[in-house]
Amino acid sequence: MKRSNVLRKIAFLGLIGAFAALVLTTLTLARDQDPLPSWNEGPVKQAIVSFVQKVTDKSGPAYVPPGERIATFDQDGTLWVEHPLYAQGMFALDRVRQLAPQHPEWQTTEPFKSVLSVDRAAMAKFTEQDWQRLIAATHAGMTTEAFLQIAREWLAHSRHPRFRRPYTELVYQPMLEVLQYLRANGFKTYIVTGGGQEFVRVYSQQVYGVPPEQVVGSSVATSYEYQNGKPVLMRLPKVFFIDDHAGKAIGINLFIGQRPDAAFGNSGGDREMLEWTGAGNGARLMMLVLHDDPQREYAYGPAQGLPDTGVGRFPQALWDEAKQRGWVVISMKKDFKKIFAWE
Amino acid sequence: MKRSNVLRKIAFLGLIGAFAALVLTTLTLARDQDPLPSWNEGPVKQAIVSFVQKVTDKSGPAYVPPGERIATFDQDGTLWVEHPLYAQGMFALDRVRQLAPQHPEWQTTEPFKSVLSVDRAAMAKFTEQDWQRLIAATHAGMTTEAFLQIAREWLAHSRHPRFRRPYTELVYQPMLEVLQYLRANGFKTYIVTGGGQEFVRVYSQQVYGVPPEQVVGSSVATSYEYQNGKPVLMRLPKVFFIDDHAGKAIGINLFIGQRPDAAFGNSGGDREMLEWTGAGNGARLMMLVLHDDPQREYAYGPAQGLPDTGVGRFPQALWDEAKQRGWVVISMKKDFKKIFAWE
Repeated sequence: MKRSNVLRKIAFLGLIGAFAALVLTTLTLARDQDPLPSWNEGPVKQAIVSFVQKVTDKSGPAYVPPGERIATFDQDGTLWVEHPLYAQGMFALDRVRQLAPQHPEWQTTEPFKSVLSVDRAAMAKFTEQDWQRLIAATHAGMTTEAFLQIAREWLAHSRHPRFRRPYTELVYQPMLEVLQYLRANGFKTYIVTGGGQEFVRVYSQQVYGVPPEQVVGSSVATSYEYQNGKPVLMRLPKVFFIDDHAGKAIGINLFIGQRPDAAFGNSGGDREMLEWTGAGNGARLMMLVLHDDPQREYAYGPAQGLPDTGVGRFPQALWDEAKQRGWVVISMKKDFKKIFAWE
Repeated sequence: MKRSNVLRKIAFLGLIGAFAALVLTTLTLARDQDPLPSWNEGPVKQAIVSFVQKVTDKSGPAYVPPGERIATFDQDGTLWVEHPLYAQGMFALDRVRQLAPQHPEWQTTEPFKSVLSVDRAAMAKFTEQDWQRLIAATHAGMTTEAFLQIAREWLAHSRHPRFRRPYTELVYQPMLEVLQYLRANGFKTYIVTGGGQEFVRVYSQQVYGVPPEQVVGSSVATSYEYQNGKPVLMRLPKVFFIDDHAGKAIGINLFIGQRPDAAFGNSGGDREMLEWTGAGNGARLMMLVLHDDPQREYAYGPAQGLPDTGVGRFPQALWDEAKQRGWVVISMKKDFKKIFAWE
């Protein structure tokens, strides 16, 4: 036998051993480990598990090949805390304060004036347009690389006002388990957020295990320029794409080009994403996180009589549509055994 | 020992065996198989192989972790034939002829009139704006699903005027090998095309092994609507994004959010993509396909005195920039042992 044939034979026998080992490992893990330990037992947890079983059952009618298994997740209020304000809103407000010395006119111009005088009542009434002016003033006028650095530093040093921890520690442990469970079952997991795509990409891999290219979000226009002969992308004070409401379905088609099999949200801005996901064929899983646990996190609706806080609104109409279309509502109070990893 | 512990031990030993087997298999395969058999030996083929070795050498200074290995490929003229006209241009012209009975005014209105009277001289002079009018008239006004179906049928039934084969068979075998070779070495391979994103996604998986979400291209705006209570995305006669020239660097940042380590193009429209790729740190590979083989394919420049055909222009300035920046020019005549799989 030639030497390379011997090597091939050894390799072949080894591969058979490997296969047996993998089968045994899988069986052992399957019996010993619950992939969703931070979920309480019940129909909601069961809905996730049985969806995954259907989609991965090769002999079943709802089988989906691995490359086509897609799950999309809203971020704010679905994967991490959004109260009392989205982290990126906090970032924008901090940036206004930081940049104020270079903009004396902001002391007398809205929406900047309200931010600088910490007028919470006025800030609560900011329109979409006010927020867009704030984003343009704080998220543009630098290269993409400079922006990533600014966002990275803010995330490292800012703390949530109630939990006194970095925002990146305020992710929901049960949802992290769903992300991991789906990926372990051949799903590509995407974040589809109304927030800034470039902002979320700073930490998506580290925090959620989601690589930058699997973050779909809102964005500003950029221009290709040269600085000292080196190409840069400059962030312009001009909205390019708003990935919210209908924009989520449009963004999914634009960035992913495949219809998700599963989608997770928590507010009216996620409605079209869930509708779009639900309109596909085969097994479907649409879930909405309901914030009904003021002790461990927050409680807001206004669905089910929960207070209307103006952030991450879960209106009664969304609740009604969920019931009508068979979307599963996750009660944080009842279904989450644990909310944060550090609890 | 508990039974589950015994199983774990067997699994662990098996996994060690598996690892040894995989190492041996890899060594055996590496010695026996050339991953680029359709390339002639020489510095161009060597540049690809040594780039991959550098990026994957864990102990070397240019090592890149697998999740961050990104390669981007232009399509028309880089992965498949673009002469005498881009496939999607052919598709647009066929659509004009097909839709003409519903648009009697086209008989007297440019650019439709020239298309319908097969006035090749006039068509050769079509401006960007003429093409945009054609795209708006032929690529919009239907749902995304209906468009995919139209594109699928056209691709199945149309034939290239010279090679008398479906366009999807006119892919360059050496480039398919590069795509496969890079993927086998942990790269994510993207198509970054000036062509229509949704059009290319119809066949990207089947033809190139590139899934829909790894196709970045030009797009029209879409709107979210309901038809019989079911959500649809309607394609609007309005350009949303042009993924060409600076748009390729912008599109890479927007869709991928990571800078490529390697980029492949063939025309002036790929310049910024190669510059953007080249401006990163570590090992880089920038390549341009030069069409200099009129016998087996086509010859066009105008770089190096090749004829200027107006399609897929490789200007002398691009050649000069390539030489200055160390980009590698692939001569189809010298470097491609074989051009098509069916040769």
